[in-house]
Amino acid sequence: MGTETQPSEQPWADIAPDAARRLVTAAVEAFAERGYHATTTRDIAGRAGMSPAALYIHYKTKEELLYKISSVGHRLSLRILQEAAASDGSPAERLATAVRSFVSWHAERHTTARVVQYELGALGEEHYAEIVGLRREVDTVMRSIIQDGVDAGDFDVPDVPGTTLAALSLCIDVARWFNPEGRRGPEDVGELYADLVLRMVGGAGKP
Amino acid sequence: MGTETQPSEQPWADIAPDAARRLVTAAVEAFAERGYHATTTRDIAGRAGMSPAALYIHYKTKEELLYKISSVGHRLSLRILQEAAASDGSPAERLATAVRSFVSWHAERHTTARVVQYELGALGEEHYAEIVGLRREVDTVMRSIIQDGVDAGDFDVPDVPGTTLAALSLCIDVARWFNPEGRRGPEDVGELYADLVLRMVGGAGKP
Repeated sequence: MGTETQPSEQPWADIAPDAARRLVTAAVEAFAERGYHATTTRDIAGRAGMSPAALYIHYKTKEELLYKISSVGHRLSLRILQEAAASDGSPAERLATAVRSFVSWHAERHTTARVVQYELGALGEEHYAEIVGLRREVDTVMRSIIQDGVDAGDFDVPDVPGTTLAALSLCIDVARWFNPEGRRGPEDVGELYADLVLRMVGGAGKP
Repeated sequence: MGTETQPSEQPWADIAPDAARRLVTAAVEAFAERGYHATTTRDIAGRAGMSPAALYIHYKTKEELLYKISSVGHRLSLRILQEAAASDGSPAERLATAVRSFVSWHAERHTTARVVQYELGALGEEHYAEIVGLRREVDTVMRSIIQDGVDAGDFDVPDVPGTTLAALSLCIDVARWFNPEGRRGPEDVGELYADLVLRMVGGAGKP
């Protein structure tokens, strides 16, 4: 699992300078705890140990912070799925890899994933359009793996777009219910869900 | 579908008097739009066309309103599942009925369902414990239908609690992505998902 889960470990690692990264981390926590609308830039600056004026150097508005979180989060999910889609193996193996990685991401980064999924409506119009574009790409990658399995005669799927939607929804909702202190870890849920999605596409036991 | 979807049509119908019902409706809208923490009792009273003092006659705190919404919402979901579990037919038929009804509820009442699912953490300790108890009952009902299918030799399920969790999660997440203007209506999603959950339990084509 080493390389699969790596992208999820440090979602903010590429954000520079250090102060901008600290602000993003503080914003994720604040949005997750109280919701986007109840959080002020002053709250975020305070959590990051900075003044509101220092925050303003890096992000002009609270919406810019939400956009940054949403953009990095969606790009990471997309990359995780693209890597699975491009991996070696049968469609069933690639689908299982995609589900395992996508579930692990949503379990390990459940706080970020919740913010990214539940606060979409607070994005400005242009930013929203960009994120919707990334979500379409996520859908396209998952759909292409399922379609490959249908074309190869390995899967039996009456409704490819609907099954794609359901498979992604199942993985995303892990962020809602996942409890790091629960008895199932991210990899356990990934294994369970890979099997369930293979059953959904009628491809269980056909690796 | 008439009788199946009936309980979902008017979730607040039993709340009396009229003013208390209007306050609950206003609170659901406000919480869904801005989040629980960003909403004030003044906002809610204003939306209901009432004064803050008039609100206070019916609900002493904002948390009491959230609890009312959560309690009514969870009791309705539970009743919908219990009716499906108690219906006539094979385990596969009862599971399909349960998924169709539960999905319809989450699609039709997606605004309420989002508030109920995403604001659990804002409930007071006692109220939270009561809602967790209702959620356990929901889980028990779904699990019992799946277990009946396993016991009858109709389903093949290596992990009954995990598959129960996944089936409920799939239905609940409909509230997040469902768009009343989209091309799939509540009943279309219900049909699709009934088929997918039957596939998950290895019971497709065994009515």
